[in-house]
Amino acid sequence: MSLTNASPKQAARAAKLSSRTLATLSVEARNTALDRIYDDLAEAKDSILAANARDLEIAQKSAADGTLSQSILKRLDLSRKGKFEDMLQGIKDVKNLEDPVGRVDLRTELDDGLILQRQTCPIGVLLIIFEARPEVIANIASLAIKSANAAILKGGKESTESFKAISTVISKALDSTQVPNDSIQLVTTRDAVDPLLELSQYIDLVIPRGSNDLVRHCQRKAHMPVLGHADGLCSIYLHNDVDADMAANVVVDSKCDYPAACNAVETLLVHEDLLESVWPKIASALLAENVALHCDSKAKASLQKALSHDTDRAALIRDATDADFDTEFLDLTLAVRTVDSTSTSSPTAALDAAVDHINTHGSHHTDAILTASKEAADRFCNAVDSACKFWNASTRFCDGMRFGFGTEVGISTNKVHARGPVGLEGLMIHEYRIQGSGQCAATYKAGGREFKHVRLPL
Amino acid sequence: MSLTNASPKQAARAAKLSSRTLATLSVEARNTALDRIYDDLAEAKDSILAANARDLEIAQKSAADGTLSQSILKRLDLSRKGKFEDMLQGIKDVKNLEDPVGRVDLRTELDDGLILQRQTCPIGVLLIIFEARPEVIANIASLAIKSANAAILKGGKESTESFKAISTVISKALDSTQVPNDSIQLVTTRDAVDPLLELSQYIDLVIPRGSNDLVRHCQRKAHMPVLGHADGLCSIYLHNDVDADMAANVVVDSKCDYPAACNAVETLLVHEDLLESVWPKIASALLAENVALHCDSKAKASLQKALSHDTDRAALIRDATDADFDTEFLDLTLAVRTVDSTSTSSPTAALDAAVDHINTHGSHHTDAILTASKEAADRFCNAVDSACKFWNASTRFCDGMRFGFGTEVGISTNKVHARGPVGLEGLMIHEYRIQGSGQCAATYKAGGREFKHVRLPL
Repeated sequence: MSLTNASPKQAARAAKLSSRTLATLSVEARNTALDRIYDDLAEAKDSILAANARDLEIAQKSAADGTLSQSILKRLDLSRKGKFEDMLQGIKDVKNLEDPVGRVDLRTELDDGLILQRQTCPIGVLLIIFEARPEVIANIASLAIKSANAAILKGGKESTESFKAISTVISKALDSTQVPNDSIQLVTTRDAVDPLLELSQYIDLVIPRGSNDLVRHCQRKAHMPVLGHADGLCSIYLHNDVDADMAANVVVDSKCDYPAACNAVETLLVHEDLLESVWPKIASALLAENVALHCDSKAKASLQKALSHDTDRAALIRDATDADFDTEFLDLTLAVRTVDSTSTSSPTAALDAAVDHINTHGSHHTDAILTASKEAADRFCNAVDSACKFWNASTRFCDGMRFGFGTEVGISTNKVHARGPVGLEGLMIHEYRIQGSGQCAATYKAGGREFKHVRLPL
Repeated sequence: MSLTNASPKQAARAAKLSSRTLATLSVEARNTALDRIYDDLAEAKDSILAANARDLEIAQKSAADGTLSQSILKRLDLSRKGKFEDMLQGIKDVKNLEDPVGRVDLRTELDDGLILQRQTCPIGVLLIIFEARPEVIANIASLAIKSANAAILKGGKESTESFKAISTVISKALDSTQVPNDSIQLVTTRDAVDPLLELSQYIDLVIPRGSNDLVRHCQRKAHMPVLGHADGLCSIYLHNDVDADMAANVVVDSKCDYPAACNAVETLLVHEDLLESVWPKIASALLAENVALHCDSKAKASLQKALSHDTDRAALIRDATDADFDTEFLDLTLAVRTVDSTSTSSPTAALDAAVDHINTHGSHHTDAILTASKEAADRFCNAVDSACKFWNASTRFCDGMRFGFGTEVGISTNKVHARGPVGLEGLMIHEYRIQGSGQCAATYKAGGREFKHVRLPL
């Protein structure tokens, strides 16, 4: 791991060269490097926290004069209870994952003694751009080494001192292992992001971990694929047969469990039949949690009727604007739209209108239907064009850890490579190998020898 | 299937809208559409060939005055023996492939009654750009319908009349099926390619089928991922223990079976130990096939010594320039470089030099090692950064049909999504579905309920 003032191009080139060595290492060699990083970081805790304190001091001044948000300040602080230990545990967790390299997923006997095999292999060089959290360096270095990918890391300027301290330790740790030092490149040069995003000859995949603006910037500028999502505009559709208590629980959880998350719900689509009965109950539960409801006229009218006695909450019920249905609020605000069941004679008119709304206004991330009907759920899940489709569960379940992937690189709304929560698997691609004994293609021309194409056990 | 003068944007938007309907159709509905297309094209053979004859007439004039190549003329001609029938058979072949939609490849019990499932689904809208071959329309329309993807087709201007005739038949055939007519959009507007490549809100993947220049143009201009490869610069490395006869057969096949193909060999890397004995035998076999050998000084000197009697062939033995090792010749020319075994004390010095050459000068498509040693083959295959690595087999085996994929969308040198020969699988992505009964994420917070994460049988 080099911490240099190398130019973006030098860093990327060095990463590319070393990536081929890294790709040939055994899982034992890669795991040994993770153990060494763990031990050395544990030992260097005091000096790392001292560096972090210097970052915090500068950040606190910026927070005091209002140029830095309190949430960034909080994310920056490595001395918060359990945070350093969680960072260390993360390295062990990644180490203990199954080796993702060289998994054979296809074997075909093309002909006698001519065997085709498809197996997983690392992608090559990853560019990972992250913002304030300094502990992400250790996490990402671990993921890269485990998956045998070289990585170029570019951290946010707020965590410069912490970043340098951690990377110096990791660099020294790698020196005594088989993992080439250059396979983790740290770039600290200011304004290095845009030049890096152009180096498609060296960098194979960009993974931005930070704000929607950062992701959008990468998507716009990168000459190589970008893994991630800019927006998380998730919706829940309430079908006309939904149980009121279940719906209230799931909608409140989806909105309130962590409103700033990409998998929090932002739009609620309510079947018209529910306006008098179920919707006021769900609204009450949301209002009790201080959720502002930006309602279309029907949804608002029904609440004004049902909740007329509750003047405390009236201020939270507002008129929705068109823009509300294209907004990722990331706070305690929910856009509410009624879906009409009577405009056509089709029995699925409301459900279909909800699907159209989601496919048009959503961000293809995670959308849920709450219903007792399997038929309605299937229709919804087949027609919605999103990475995750949930039936009777909170949108908040969209997460690599909750899905049981052990780690999460991010959540992708891409339509190629990896979609939804992405684990180590998303850092791999496949290669084909053939083992033969001198076979020639001309032998199999029309009228010649025929291929066997026998699928072999893995 | 619409053949309109719609703008690129109108066509793309219509394809996107219809793609969601197509994604919900059963495999029976999609297969029925393929049967209908087959029957109607078979019936319209005469009128299609008449349209093709009009294209040919114009093309023959262009060929006569030298503005069109003979090979394009040949590719354009649908009346050549068996070509129309092959086009029809291709539709049946695609129909008979296993349904690629909805294949479940992960099922996890997150908790009691909370089931996560990952399954394949179509990508959405494909943009397929192709050059002269008119029969590609039928092939691509079949692949799109089978994989439940909408497609926008843009054909070359030389095949305009054939294209219109075939598409009119397909459009009429689809009208009597459940496949929405708009899900296959034909764009005939001139200069439509560049505007289409910008419509990433509607188009999810571009597949260029044609010249390297076309692919490179798409890679440079597209705002969405491009599947394919611009270059096929394949190499073969001859290890010092190689059998001369086997090597001669495989190298001649790799070069001569179809020199214009992307999987033909362009560079031969010869272990220094072979210069006196094996290399002259292989060179003789290549010279007998009229292959021009662009040799480095050592490889040339050894041939001048060994083949001094053969003055007929001497003109085919030339000096290699640096540029030769970065050139995809696509004809009967082969660049030959000696890899040195003596510059370092390492026993694998020559093999490692070959790997470095391939990783630096190759196009990461298909590279082969010819050797009796499993150890050398493994070292080569682990270190070479290419989609396909072959041991003792011709590079020409890199092909979807030969791999047993049933069909081929193209060969990809991308490092994400699909790599190597791409079958129907490359037109799919996955989605996650959860079936629950009202579960909330807050229940599983630290200290709360724990996930089970039990892998279920598929």
